[in-house]
Amino acid sequence: MAAASVWSVDPRTGNPRAQVAVESTSQEIDQAVRAAHATRPALADRGLRARLLRTAAELLDEAAERIVQEADAETALGPVRLTGELARTTAQLRAFADVVDEGAYLDIRIDHADAGRTPPWPDLRRYKIPLGVVAVYAASNFPLAFSVPGGDTASALAAGCPVVVKAHPDHPATSQRCASVLRTAACRVGLPEDVVILVHGFEAGVELVRHALVAAAGFTGSVRGGRALFDAAAARPVPIPFHGELGSLNPVVITAAAAEEQAEQLGAGLAGSMILGKGQFCTKPGFVLAPAGDAGDRLVKALSAAVSESEPGVMLDPRMRDAFVAGVRERAALADVETPVAPGAGRESSHPQAAGGQSVSAGFLTVPARLLAAEGAHDLLLQECFGPVTVVARYDSDAEVTAVLSRLPGNLTATLHLSDGEAAGEGRGAELLAELTPLAGRVLVGGWPTGVAVAPAQHHGGPYPAATSTSTSVGATAIERWLRPVTYQTTPGALLPPELRDDNPLGLARRVDGRLEH
Amino acid sequence: MAAASVWSVDPRTGNPRAQVAVESTSQEIDQAVRAAHATRPALADRGLRARLLRTAAELLDEAAERIVQEADAETALGPVRLTGELARTTAQLRAFADVVDEGAYLDIRIDHADAGRTPPWPDLRRYKIPLGVVAVYAASNFPLAFSVPGGDTASALAAGCPVVVKAHPDHPATSQRCASVLRTAACRVGLPEDVVILVHGFEAGVELVRHALVAAAGFTGSVRGGRALFDAAAARPVPIPFHGELGSLNPVVITAAAAEEQAEQLGAGLAGSMILGKGQFCTKPGFVLAPAGDAGDRLVKALSAAVSESEPGVMLDPRMRDAFVAGVRERAALADVETPVAPGAGRESSHPQAAGGQSVSAGFLTVPARLLAAEGAHDLLLQECFGPVTVVARYDSDAEVTAVLSRLPGNLTATLHLSDGEAAGEGRGAELLAELTPLAGRVLVGGWPTGVAVAPAQHHGGPYPAATSTSTSVGATAIERWLRPVTYQTTPGALLPPELRDDNPLGLARRVDGRLEH
Repeated sequence: MAAASVWSVDPRTGNPRAQVAVESTSQEIDQAVRAAHATRPALADRGLRARLLRTAAELLDEAAERIVQEADAETALGPVRLTGELARTTAQLRAFADVVDEGAYLDIRIDHADAGRTPPWPDLRRYKIPLGVVAVYAASNFPLAFSVPGGDTASALAAGCPVVVKAHPDHPATSQRCASVLRTAACRVGLPEDVVILVHGFEAGVELVRHALVAAAGFTGSVRGGRALFDAAAARPVPIPFHGELGSLNPVVITAAAAEEQAEQLGAGLAGSMILGKGQFCTKPGFVLAPAGDAGDRLVKALSAAVSESEPGVMLDPRMRDAFVAGVRERAALADVETPVAPGAGRESSHPQAAGGQSVSAGFLTVPARLLAAEGAHDLLLQECFGPVTVVARYDSDAEVTAVLSRLPGNLTATLHLSDGEAAGEGRGAELLAELTPLAGRVLVGGWPTGVAVAPAQHHGGPYPAATSTSTSVGATAIERWLRPVTYQTTPGALLPPELRDDNPLGLARRVDGRLEH
Repeated sequence: MAAASVWSVDPRTGNPRAQVAVESTSQEIDQAVRAAHATRPALADRGLRARLLRTAAELLDEAAERIVQEADAETALGPVRLTGELARTTAQLRAFADVVDEGAYLDIRIDHADAGRTPPWPDLRRYKIPLGVVAVYAASNFPLAFSVPGGDTASALAAGCPVVVKAHPDHPATSQRCASVLRTAACRVGLPEDVVILVHGFEAGVELVRHALVAAAGFTGSVRGGRALFDAAAARPVPIPFHGELGSLNPVVITAAAAEEQAEQLGAGLAGSMILGKGQFCTKPGFVLAPAGDAGDRLVKALSAAVSESEPGVMLDPRMRDAFVAGVRERAALADVETPVAPGAGRESSHPQAAGGQSVSAGFLTVPARLLAAEGAHDLLLQECFGPVTVVARYDSDAEVTAVLSRLPGNLTATLHLSDGEAAGEGRGAELLAELTPLAGRVLVGGWPTGVAVAPAQHHGGPYPAATSTSTSVGATAIERWLRPVTYQTTPGALLPPELRDDNPLGLARRVDGRLEH
């Protein structure tokens, strides 16, 4: 039997563009993992790794035009967004090069022998080493920043781990192109190109996470797909860390005083954030607690106006579009749910890019918050619905807000809108912040959750299902996922890695005898 | 039906000492977890936590005589060892109090807004917060240091997590006494005593890891028990981190040149380490690669002499003793395995403490290393056998050493003995160190793996089955297991926790705009 073809498809028309690959066979997965595994000694050189990351960024920037064109043809995300995403991707590669150069991620600790301790301390020297081959599962909605050249790959390479990426079927041609650039970058700096290998196919992805030489996995995608792979990783004879980002509702709480002060701006801001990228961001605000009453009504009115004006758009693939349409329909059919602007399919559009059958229009639902204060049919509204839709739950009291918040699953983000007075410490601001903190990995006061800065202090993760571990997939600390500590005891200087020698030849920050030195 | 009784048993005689509790019911587990969960706000105070840990250490020290007596009566580990273990336990509690006071574990990162970044950075401030209730599974072989007042409890409390400890059935009375001391310490410093709650029973342990309000688990024990709990933690609707230490062979490699130089010392040293605590240490050297030929023969002779002279002893419980006897018998029956000193039951002893039927005698097996270079029946020798036995594999070539090492599972420790010349950089020292590093969490050059210093640079963990995660259960970084990061975005100073305010009122070490400040 011939292997299944992998086609690049135009989501605007539903037409196939080209066959770009075939699905990887078991044998190919095995070969890929072994080939990647064999590059570990070469990747042990920190200097080369930093050069690899910077060279990859440079080559991606050079190829920007063709990459953006290819990615747009496969995802319909548009050249503006994709140009921004590529810039973010190359900035991320360079940021990890800086992390590698600095070396603080090694978390070096040296304790000289101390016979006076209970029990006595021998000479102990600890740092972190790479885990081994990392399996990366690319995301549908970020063909660059969370795919082949994205954060998982960048942080794994930074850590010294070779990467086997499972391409997302929504953008196989973009994946091929980016993998090729990364492999060229490896050649350019004198590393084996197999430090990054691309594979295709659903079954291939499952086999990958089960391969004995795969040491860890990174995933961005749905709860269903991510949980299946998480379960496979945990069920291995030797379980491996599985760092998955699976799903998030991204609740927003708007206080009565905030609505009073800026209902119109909040309604328009919410519309912008939930529609951005056709609502296909993992940080889309999918659930909003807004006050009942006049100020809340003004907010809903502003939201309606902004959402109504938005153009229909094309989602990443037909499956996703069908799930969106069905998900919206099911939610709208619940008792006491209203649809001031009905999201879904079928609205006519003048936009030339929405010519195919896959365009969807943005909208939102409203519901009395009290219906969500206890278990029931309305709990469906507390599940993520991927696409340009949000749920506005109107509350009558602080107690309702607290009751609903206590029922939410884990999230990537939680956002709080306060009045100026509340932001300065009056009223319930601190209390609400304390209620939101257990719910998310990132808590915003003001602003909107879409847009994730690639910064050292970033945390893109959160309680399950936002993430399957306590780690982040964005920001400097994402490198920690691919490392494990090792301690050398009473090891002669001649045999120690330079990072752990007393003379600190590499000039690294270290914690020596309990004190930070840098 | 009445709940099953929990008895304290004297392992020297097999006689029950007293009924100390009954097995916890489902309802009691639920109550315990909820009560512990309710103490989280009180535990949020870092100053109080540090005082709790120091007060607990003080009260345990005050109660030392009775604790050691009780623990000895239940474990037969002897007052000398147990006095040392208690000292280590209280030192560990105090060390975590220092970690809490210092606050570096919060890993604070502050990035001020920077519009020039791609994409722009909003103000981001990250630190770590406690996960919630931690389930601790006490170990059989360390009734103090890895049980109720041990490292898991100490590090979880340090992190701000309440603890529900599942007592080990080998020392329920000691567990009760220690739990009582910890709860008194909580009262003493003004914390609710339910920051630590003790439960009993196998089923209780399973229910505990499945409880919705349990946020993480720490375990020290067997591969079988630990894997079952790991699987239960991973199969939850909301999976939780499970930090288990399950088993370790702790390989030792002795080079030909090392044996040449110090065969007698190495044989005697190995005997001491493998017999220590009746071979019931997770770091017992259970597998030794020693050269064939004269020097190796001298080493085996010295080992024989030392092991023969050792007194039989009592193991922790009859099940363990039976497993030891059966495990040794099965291994000794393999082709070409020799038993210079046969371990097992049945040797007469003059030692008054070995009066019961449960005494065992130490011994060791030898086998040609080539029989372990490829899969086969002899692979049984590469599995941990708990108790006073080790396997000495005699090798003829460097290639045999490499082949056997490549077949080992993950370990807590790996030990290398080199000649003086090799330690100075001659010959294969560096190469062997590189081969041992992937195998273990702690790599020793010289010395023996038993004895785990409670030091900042310690790492007590390693590739599976040594540990189910990349974390450590001993040393300062053990606190990281019970924390998760959270980032506050554009949050007004009036609402920020003091740790994240610009004026740094607590004087903590922080990474601000990429630079470490302390």
